[in-house]
Amino acid sequence: MAKQEDIFKNVISHAKEYGFIFPSSEVYDGLSAVYDYAQNGVELKKNIREYWWKSMVQMNDNIVGLDAAILMHPTTWKASGHVDAFNDPLIDNKDSKKRYRADVLVEDYAEKLNVKAKKEIEKARTRFGDAFNEQEFITTNARVVEYLAKEREILERLAKGMSEDLADVKALIEELEIADPETGSRNWTDVKQFNLMFGTKLGASADSAMDLYLRPETAQGIFVNFLNVQKSGRMKVPFGIAQTGKAFRNEIVARQFIFRMREFEQMEMQFFVRPGEEMKHYEYWKETRLKWHLSLGLGQANYRFHDHEKLAHYANAAADIEFNFPFGFKELEGIHSRTDFDLKAHEQHSGRKLQYFDAELNKNYVPYVVETSLGLDRMFLAVFATSLQEEVLEDGSSRTVLKLPSVLAPTKAAVLPLVKKDGLPDIAHQIIDDLKWDFNVAYDEKDAVGRRYRRQDALGTPFCITVDHQTIEDQTVTIRHRDSMKQDRVAIADLKSIIENEVSMKNWLMKM
Amino acid sequence: MAKQEDIFKNVISHAKEYGFIFPSSEVYDGLSAVYDYAQNGVELKKNIREYWWKSMVQMNDNIVGLDAAILMHPTTWKASGHVDAFNDPLIDNKDSKKRYRADVLVEDYAEKLNVKAKKEIEKARTRFGDAFNEQEFITTNARVVEYLAKEREILERLAKGMSEDLADVKALIEELEIADPETGSRNWTDVKQFNLMFGTKLGASADSAMDLYLRPETAQGIFVNFLNVQKSGRMKVPFGIAQTGKAFRNEIVARQFIFRMREFEQMEMQFFVRPGEEMKHYEYWKETRLKWHLSLGLGQANYRFHDHEKLAHYANAAADIEFNFPFGFKELEGIHSRTDFDLKAHEQHSGRKLQYFDAELNKNYVPYVVETSLGLDRMFLAVFATSLQEEVLEDGSSRTVLKLPSVLAPTKAAVLPLVKKDGLPDIAHQIIDDLKWDFNVAYDEKDAVGRRYRRQDALGTPFCITVDHQTIEDQTVTIRHRDSMKQDRVAIADLKSIIENEVSMKNWLMKM
Repeated sequence: MAKQEDIFKNVISHAKEYGFIFPSSEVYDGLSAVYDYAQNGVELKKNIREYWWKSMVQMNDNIVGLDAAILMHPTTWKASGHVDAFNDPLIDNKDSKKRYRADVLVEDYAEKLNVKAKKEIEKARTRFGDAFNEQEFITTNARVVEYLAKEREILERLAKGMSEDLADVKALIEELEIADPETGSRNWTDVKQFNLMFGTKLGASADSAMDLYLRPETAQGIFVNFLNVQKSGRMKVPFGIAQTGKAFRNEIVARQFIFRMREFEQMEMQFFVRPGEEMKHYEYWKETRLKWHLSLGLGQANYRFHDHEKLAHYANAAADIEFNFPFGFKELEGIHSRTDFDLKAHEQHSGRKLQYFDAELNKNYVPYVVETSLGLDRMFLAVFATSLQEEVLEDGSSRTVLKLPSVLAPTKAAVLPLVKKDGLPDIAHQIIDDLKWDFNVAYDEKDAVGRRYRRQDALGTPFCITVDHQTIEDQTVTIRHRDSMKQDRVAIADLKSIIENEVSMKNWLMKM
Repeated sequence: MAKQEDIFKNVISHAKEYGFIFPSSEVYDGLSAVYDYAQNGVELKKNIREYWWKSMVQMNDNIVGLDAAILMHPTTWKASGHVDAFNDPLIDNKDSKKRYRADVLVEDYAEKLNVKAKKEIEKARTRFGDAFNEQEFITTNARVVEYLAKEREILERLAKGMSEDLADVKALIEELEIADPETGSRNWTDVKQFNLMFGTKLGASADSAMDLYLRPETAQGIFVNFLNVQKSGRMKVPFGIAQTGKAFRNEIVARQFIFRMREFEQMEMQFFVRPGEEMKHYEYWKETRLKWHLSLGLGQANYRFHDHEKLAHYANAAADIEFNFPFGFKELEGIHSRTDFDLKAHEQHSGRKLQYFDAELNKNYVPYVVETSLGLDRMFLAVFATSLQEEVLEDGSSRTVLKLPSVLAPTKAAVLPLVKKDGLPDIAHQIIDDLKWDFNVAYDEKDAVGRRYRRQDALGTPFCITVDHQTIEDQTVTIRHRDSMKQDRVAIADLKSIIENEVSMKNWLMKM
C-alpha cells in the first residue's frame, strides 16, 4: 500500500517538475480539484484526443463529430434527470463545520470491517500454510463470519436508506457511532441531497435572470442535436456522433489528482441503432474500445472489463473498461446501452418528435443508443502513470524514463549539438528547421550530452539526435532510441522517415 | 445595406443546412447567443485551431503551449481588474421590461445623425458630379455641419458620462428623447453597471461556498502559470506561451451570429520580453499575425490594421487586425503591448514574486508582455462567410460553392461511384479505405453525379473522385477540382500525393 502511494506521489511530482500538470492558479495556492495542463501536458492531451478522434471520426464512414456548447437550455437537464436526481447525500459536522458524503462515511466504516476480516484470513493462511482452505475458513470462522455479515448488513441498510429515506442513513451513522474523520466529533446535521451541477445565471432580461448549468456531461449535447445532424448529414441508422469537451461537477470529495476533477474533459460517442439491435452494437463497441486501448501498448494485464450488475435507470446493459491505476483498478471508460431513454425524455420535455424514418423498414422510430464514454484526463493519467518508470541500468546506475507510446509523446525528437561550438549548433538548427514542419522537435545545448539524454527520457521524447564533428564530414548524426538507449548512425536525409515511421498515428491505428 | 443583410442571412442558413453551425439546444428553442458546431463545423473549427497551433507552437522554438482550466482562483479576477471594472452600463425600460446597453442606445442615436449627413453628401455628389469636392461640402453645408457637430457632441458627452458619472448618461438619453427601440416607451430606470462575468459557486465546505467565475478571457491562465512554465521548461526571455480555450461573457446585447457569443473560444499567445524591448516585438507580431491570415488566401483587401488611439489601462500600444465581415470591417484579432501590468498585479495580490532572472543582463525583472489574441469563432465566421460564393457558370446556370482554403476544409475528398452497380461502389470503398488513414474522406452514391458535385461544392470539399467503368479497366479515376471544376484523369495510385500536396498544413504554412 505504501508502495502504491509512493508511486502515485512520484507521478504527481514528475508531472509538475517536467511541465505536464500544474495545480490550477497555484500562485493563489490553487483551486481544489482543478488542474492546468502545462507545456508538455497540453501536447500529450492533444495527442490522446486526436488519436481518439481519428479512430472514431476519420476512420469510420458512419461516425461524425460535434462540438456542442457547455451552456445549454436548462430544460435539457430537467429532461436528462440531472436537476432532480444528480445528487450526493451530504452531511455536515456541526462542530468542525466539515462536510462529508454520508454514503462515503458509511462505506468507509464497512470497508474497515472487510479489512479486519481479511487480516484474520491472512493470519490463518500463515498459520495453516498449504492446508489452508480460504472458502471454508470464511464460512466457519466466527469472527470472520461476524465481520462480513456486519459489513453486508450495513451496506444493505445504506442502499435502502439512499433510495428510500435519508433519515435512515443519518440514523445508521449515529447507530454506528461514526465520527468526523478529522476531529472525532459525532455531532452531525441531517443528511441532505446536494446537486452536483454548477449553476450560473444568464442575465439577459430585466425582470428575471435565467438559471443555467455548466453541463455535467457531454452526452446531452449530442442527444439534443441528434435530428439536426441526422438530417443535415443525411445519416442512416446505425450511425454515431462523437464529441470531446469539458464537463463540470461540483464534487464534494474530489481527489486522486486528475482522476476525479471538478472540471474535466470527456470523449464520448453516441451510436444510434435500431431498437432491438442494441446488444449486437454494445458487444461490438466493448470489443472495439478495448482494442483501441490495447493498440497503445500499455500492456493487456492493465485492463479488465467490469460488467455492471446494478444498472442506471436509463441503461439495459453497461460495462466499464477498468485500468490498473497507481491506486488500483478503476473505471477508465464506460460502454452503456442507454436504450431510447434520453431521446424520449427530450421528446417529452420539448414536445418535438426525435424520430428517424428507416426507409428499409418503412417505419419511424426513436433510435436506441449505445454510448462509449472515456475521460480524457483519466486516459492521460493512465498513460502517464504507466509510462513513468525507474530503470536500473547494466552499470548499476538508474534512470527515470517516461515510456510514452511514441505516437502520444509531446516532443518527437530533441536535436542536440555535442558541443556549443565548431558550427554544431548551426547544423542542429538546420535539422530542426527541416523537421519542424512535420513534428514537434526541441533543441537542447545545455549540460553534458548524457544529462540531456536523461532529461529527454524524463520528458518521454522518443528520439535524441546528436550532431557531432563527424556530422560536418559526412552529414550523418546519431539517433538514440529512448527505450532501448541504442544509438544508430544515420544520414540526416533519413531522419524524417525514421521518425515518421515510428510516431505516425496511421501506423499506430493500424495496430487496432 | 439590404444586400449585406441578405448575404449574412444566407451565411447563417447555409451554416445550418449543411451541418456547420446549429443554434444551441434548438429542440428547446435555443439559448440566445450560444451555438453548437455541427459535424462539418467541428472539423473546420478544429482545422483552424490546429493551423494556428502549428504556426505558433510547433514552428517556434521559443513558444510553448498551455491548457489552463476554465475555473480559476477568484483572486485572479480581482487582480486582473475584472471584478471591479468588467462592466456594461445597463438601462431597463420600466414599461417593456427590456434591458439595453445605455451606451449603445446613445451610439445608435448618434449613428443616425451620421447617416443623415452621409445622405446629404451622396445627394450633393449626384447633383454636382465630377465637380464635387466632398471635404469642402462637409465643412460648408449647414445641415451637414450641424449633423456632424451634434454627433460629435453626443459622443463626447457619452464618453465623459461613461467615465465620470452614469447619471449623466441617463440625462443624455432623456434629453435626446431616446425611446425603447421595440416599444417606443421613454420610461427608463437609472443606468447601472452590470458585471459581464458568469458567476458560480464551489460548494466544497459546510460554512461557506466559494464564489467562482467562468473565465472571461484565457490570458490570465497564462499569466498565473508564467513562472511554472518558465522554470519547468527552462525558457529564456523572450519566449511565448500559447493557449486555445473557452471563455464566457454574460453579454446583454449579443448578436451577429457567432461574432459575439456568450460562450466563445480564444486563441491567444502571450510573449514575455525584456522591459523596454516591447515595441520591437509588438511590431514583429503585428506583421507576423497578418502574414498568417494572408497565408489562407482570403484576399489582402479583406484585412486592415486599426491602431488604437485610446488604450486600455494595461496597454502601451494596441492594434486590431480588422476583417471585412458581411456586416463591415470589425475586429478579428488584437495585438496588444500589455506592459508588466498583469504580472505585477498578480504579484501584488498573491504576495509572490513573478520575476525572471536574465542571466545575460544579470538582473531580475518582471517581463513585459506582447499579446496576440484571436477569436476562433470570429476566425471561423471570416473564413466561412468569405468562402461562401454564388457563381454564375458559362452555361448561365449558377452554383453555390464554399471556397474554403483546402487546408481547412472539413472533408478533403468525396469518392463517388458513377452508378450504384457493376462493382463501382466496391472500388470507391477500397479507395476510401486507402485514403482514410491520411484524410477525412466521404462516400456519396445518392443522386446523379452532377448533384453530388454540387453538394460537395456547398460543403467545401476540395476534390471529388469519381469511379466509373474505365476505372475497372485501367485503375484510373477522374478527380474534379472544386474551384475550377476541371476534371483530370489520374491513376488511383497517385490520389494520395495529389491530395496531400494541396491540403497539407506544411505546404500552406510555407506560404507565410
